Amino acid sequence: MLLVGESINGTRKQVADAITGRDAEFIKALAQEQVDAGAHVLDVNGGVAGGNEVEDLTWLIATVRSVTDSQLMVDSASPVALQAGVEACIKDGGKVPFINSISGEQSRIDAVLPLLEKYKCPVVGLCLSDEGIPPTAADRFAVAQKLHGLTSSVGLPSEDLWIDPLVLTVSADMNAGVVTMQTLKMVKEQLPVRTTGGLSNVSFGLPNRPLLNRTFVAMCMGLGIDGAVLDVRNKQMMATIKAAAALRAEDPYCGNYLKAHRAGLLE
Amino acid sequence: MLLVGESINGTRKQVADAITGRDAEFIKALAQEQVDAGAHVLDVNGGVAGGNEVEDLTWLIATVRSVTDSQLMVDSASPVALQAGVEACIKDGGKVPFINSISGEQSRIDAVLPLLEKYKCPVVGLCLSDEGIPPTAADRFAVAQKLHGLTSSVGLPSEDLWIDPLVLTVSADMNAGVVTMQTLKMVKEQLPVRTTGGLSNVSFGLPNRPLLNRTFVAMCMGLGIDGAVLDVRNKQMMATIKAAAALRAEDPYCGNYLKAHRAGLLE
Repeated sequence: MLLVGESINGTRKQVADAITGRDAEFIKALAQEQVDAGAHVLDVNGGVAGGNEVEDLTWLIATVRSVTDSQLMVDSASPVALQAGVEACIKDGGKVPFINSISGEQSRIDAVLPLLEKYKCPVVGLCLSDEGIPPTAADRFAVAQKLHGLTSSVGLPSEDLWIDPLVLTVSADMNAGVVTMQTLKMVKEQLPVRTTGGLSNVSFGLPNRPLLNRTFVAMCMGLGIDGAVLDVRNKQMMATIKAAAALRAEDPYCGNYLKAHRAGLLE
Repeated sequence: MLLVGESINGTRKQVADAITGRDAEFIKALAQEQVDAGAHVLDVNGGVAGGNEVEDLTWLIATVRSVTDSQLMVDSASPVALQAGVEACIKDGGKVPFINSISGEQSRIDAVLPLLEKYKCPVVGLCLSDEGIPPTAADRFAVAQKLHGLTSSVGLPSEDLWIDPLVLTVSADMNAGVVTMQTLKMVKEQLPVRTTGGLSNVSFGLPNRPLLNRTFVAMCMGLGIDGAVLDVRNKQMMATIKAAAALRAEDPYCGNYLKAHRAGLLE
């Protein structure tokens, strides 16, 4: 289970302030905290209202890299910023980052596919098209299939495409979780790609969101999801993921589970 | 999700004492508590060392029936006790109970199949044979398939066979959970039966068992399990099940989830 820490994101007020004010210590602490909590990859999004995203993202990545060798995930709506971000990651021998994200939208394909061809970055592939997020699993799967064809055509190995089936909130549509799980199942069974998700949308508008979020992650782990983008600092979520990893044979001798127990992380 | 309360079981010390001492108030309270906690069916097992199981079980069932109309699940290793239990349930117009259980063991088939033919009880079908619990999902599925053939041959509707894929502890075999989930997936995809499980064995020998148990239930609910036999009085387990039910579209408008939230049951 690949855990991507989502917290370094300019859409969050505190992070936006740290980016604008070039508060390197805040960003470094946030990076370190996520690594310590078990993040394998750190998502980095430098988009701030009124900012210069290329400069902001380049600074952000250099700042994060000064405290950790962890692989990063460059996250931006802007193709120019994505390219600058990838270059800031690989500069001076740094690891090739993930790109977050490509989708079935034509403009996004046109912008991101050349970056994948050039840098061979693993990439998150969102199951949405120019018509929006398809309401059915079959149509979301069709987007996944298209993305697999496109990324393969530029030489990206199938296992470097991480399909995100996307999830909407069950408070607005009771079938929202089911459609996501059906899509996940189809992708797992029919494509040689990997799967991930930012799953917390599922609980939007409902009370006790952390309970719904960690339960949904466990359900998706039962269906074989390979990764998630999430707040790794949420202790109960991480306890659930450690338990699920042991239960799906990803934790030999339950070693990580027992270690987390001894560290008091499972209560 | 059919929730079967497991607590009225003579293998538990307090219950054994209540059976031996004919402490009807204790049994009534335990029945009521499980119904209040959300059990749809109550498992009733009257097996006590040194007891007369037919008499004990008949008393137990009459006692439970005096406080609730809930459907019961007659649970015994003894065919004679099973028959007496079923008759105690249906006496004076009571509901036809579940039988817990049939399996691929020949002696069990010989004893239980005639009861199914006569009373048309829904039944739990355990994926084990005379050789024990098969180590592979394919072999457990073969037992499920055999049980489906046998129960169908005596006129039991497919949806009244509740296959339990069985689970061993991951502390002894890291693949134990995976084999159970693979079996569940095969049964869901290939047989028109329903599925259930007593899932808490999975955590035997490990710390924080409730965390592992509720996470495993969520994973199995992601795979579509239709029921579980469990301690419905465990608040965190029930909160997870309510969340998972909402997430798999079994709770219109998240009504039960919101009701549980307002009652303070999700914390």
